[in-house]
Amino acid sequence: MADPERIKAVAEHVAYTKRHGNDVVVVVSAMGKTTDNLISLANQVSSTHPGRELDMLLTTGERISMALVCMALADIGIDAVSFTGSQVGIITDTVHTKAKILEVKGDRLREALSAGKVAVVAGFQGVSTEREITTLGRGGSDTTAVALAAALNADVCEIYTDVTGVFTADPRIVPQARKLQQLDFEEMLEMAGAGSKVLALRSVEFARNHNVPLHVRSSFTWETGTWVLDRSAQISSKETAMEEPIISGVVQDTGESKITVVGVADKPGISAALFEPLAAANINVDMIVQNTSKDGRTDISFTAPKADLKKALEIVNGVAKEIGANDVTHVESVAKISLVGAGMRTSPGIAAKMFRVLAAAGVNIEMISTSTIRVSVVVDAASTETALRALHTAFGLDSGQAYSAPLPERK
Amino acid sequence: MADPERIKAVAEHVAYTKRHGNDVVVVVSAMGKTTDNLISLANQVSSTHPGRELDMLLTTGERISMALVCMALADIGIDAVSFTGSQVGIITDTVHTKAKILEVKGDRLREALSAGKVAVVAGFQGVSTEREITTLGRGGSDTTAVALAAALNADVCEIYTDVTGVFTADPRIVPQARKLQQLDFEEMLEMAGAGSKVLALRSVEFARNHNVPLHVRSSFTWETGTWVLDRSAQISSKETAMEEPIISGVVQDTGESKITVVGVADKPGISAALFEPLAAANINVDMIVQNTSKDGRTDISFTAPKADLKKALEIVNGVAKEIGANDVTHVESVAKISLVGAGMRTSPGIAAKMFRVLAAAGVNIEMISTSTIRVSVVVDAASTETALRALHTAFGLDSGQAYSAPLPERK
Repeated sequence: MADPERIKAVAEHVAYTKRHGNDVVVVVSAMGKTTDNLISLANQVSSTHPGRELDMLLTTGERISMALVCMALADIGIDAVSFTGSQVGIITDTVHTKAKILEVKGDRLREALSAGKVAVVAGFQGVSTEREITTLGRGGSDTTAVALAAALNADVCEIYTDVTGVFTADPRIVPQARKLQQLDFEEMLEMAGAGSKVLALRSVEFARNHNVPLHVRSSFTWETGTWVLDRSAQISSKETAMEEPIISGVVQDTGESKITVVGVADKPGISAALFEPLAAANINVDMIVQNTSKDGRTDISFTAPKADLKKALEIVNGVAKEIGANDVTHVESVAKISLVGAGMRTSPGIAAKMFRVLAAAGVNIEMISTSTIRVSVVVDAASTETALRALHTAFGLDSGQAYSAPLPERK
Repeated sequence: MADPERIKAVAEHVAYTKRHGNDVVVVVSAMGKTTDNLISLANQVSSTHPGRELDMLLTTGERISMALVCMALADIGIDAVSFTGSQVGIITDTVHTKAKILEVKGDRLREALSAGKVAVVAGFQGVSTEREITTLGRGGSDTTAVALAAALNADVCEIYTDVTGVFTADPRIVPQARKLQQLDFEEMLEMAGAGSKVLALRSVEFARNHNVPLHVRSSFTWETGTWVLDRSAQISSKETAMEEPIISGVVQDTGESKITVVGVADKPGISAALFEPLAAANINVDMIVQNTSKDGRTDISFTAPKADLKKALEIVNGVAKEIGANDVTHVESVAKISLVGAGMRTSPGIAAKMFRVLAAAGVNIEMISTSTIRVSVVVDAASTETALRALHTAFGLDSGQAYSAPLPERK
């Protein structure tokens, strides 16, 4: 929802889908800079932003969008009706600015759909069990869409973004990147967790848990985007089965810092002493590496969001004294590079090949972590482009039809 | 609520009043250009603005203001909580964009006040008996404030505007204009009806009907403004009783056009044929003058808002043909000049003096209408300044203490 032009484009897509016999519920986000502008206003009037009032302030952005989308639809002959999160019965807990959805009632949505209307719902917001307006935090609008799709048992939840789908790598860095035709939920989860910005992790988790097929696409074009589906629901043919790729994509995350606690005693309870206070401060620690012990002492490194670096250092410096560590060092900006692919489960040696490729490209690996379908390494931030391009080429993502299966028909 | 500075100024006033032992409910309007910007967005996306969606869109303006006011209050140590019209139980009828208040529940307001909090309420909005968000139309925020003051049996409803009170004339036109210390509801009603922009007619009516004392003042200064009170509640002393003025003020309204239907048959039913379709089109006809009949035919002139001139002319031209009128003429811009004063009831000759003063100033009178406490004339728009200044001086408004009574003490 960037601007009025975008709203009109979305209305065209909605009208098309509706006219082809589908019931449509539209979930909107705030327009372009609306949220930033509101936060700027808040900063101008006060340094104190109570969560309840901040939520009241920020939820206006989606309300503006939803009213405008309804007007744009009315203009092209589609009968639409807007609903706030509260009106549509998105019941949340009472945690302002990052509420969790407890229940979706949806009675008014069903009424509107039965009456042949398109329903337009404000994303990112709900009403708490205490009758207060709440917001869902990051990725809130996507989460609203998936939650409503699940509650209404929708055929598909289309996510309109500013890109045409999920790519094998960030096309701004790897020009040869290709759009993926489909992905399974686990792969999308790993990609989101590894730093892909296309879909919020939380909304993918919600979609997986409720088995809601997602279609990631752009409101600026009519082309098919990327489907995110349960593995069993994926479209395959003999050819695609034969050429099913091992790797779906390479993802970078450049928003992290690395902190190392040097020379701590290698004994039980040290990790807990370090990471418990970080967790209590809501600092999202990502990768953790502990060196081999030497003379009964070791180094512990971990990554955390750049935005939390200052707070994390304060905590770690305090803990370091308590546990008798020699020193605390940090690198403000590191890059995490991840290879993601469901095929990894049955293909050994992916990690080894990854390390070889990076070594050949002259990229030094600082940390490593893996899941069954992902290998992530932390490298110097300056090596991001080199690492991404080398891996994209080496794992055969540059060319060929990774997923050549026919697409689900547009209804 | 012009901008962040204004919001902080309002917060200071609220904090002062709260700290002096008062329970305070603040009703906010949208900031400066917010409403215009929202309407502009609506025009950009669509030429169709369903009332329900327009109300949803416009009500965001007050929500932004109320959250910001709460934050500004929190910053100076005042515990405040915001409420939408819906949350506070302002129940309206179902007429979108100009709903009427049916009931004010106010339970959550009373709870907040009992808890020692300042309540900040979004003006201009309510929730309909059909659970839809509605807006109250023009003067909606003032009306909300008066309605809440009545429901809560408040000591006073303070109206903060961009002027320091109600003046004997518009100070931009008549530099000698003085601020009035008090007025009764009837006078304020006549002034609002005659074109004074300080208070919306509707909110004054509401205040009179529920006997809510109003205090019109500026958020930029701490000086006392103008009190609008029931006649019996006005503060008087011997001196003021002796010098009670006949005229409280001179008011201009330059937002009207004049239409004349020339040469219509002087017979029953003609007026109805003319004015019924205008009323059906929601055109607010103000003054009507019918000339003395001559040869069984007459001319009918009336004034209507400039904004409705085009629509009014279409209707009148249609009717003119049907009723066999000779012609329809119009003046796009006329000025209505009104003298208002409760003392007129007991002072004969005010109208005659007014006509004499205007004649001496070379101002031609085109139409006349009167009430018991008001005389209005329509003059050429170019004569507005001359007429206002001549009347202001002639009726002794330039100098002297028209209302020299002591003011109600600030609590």
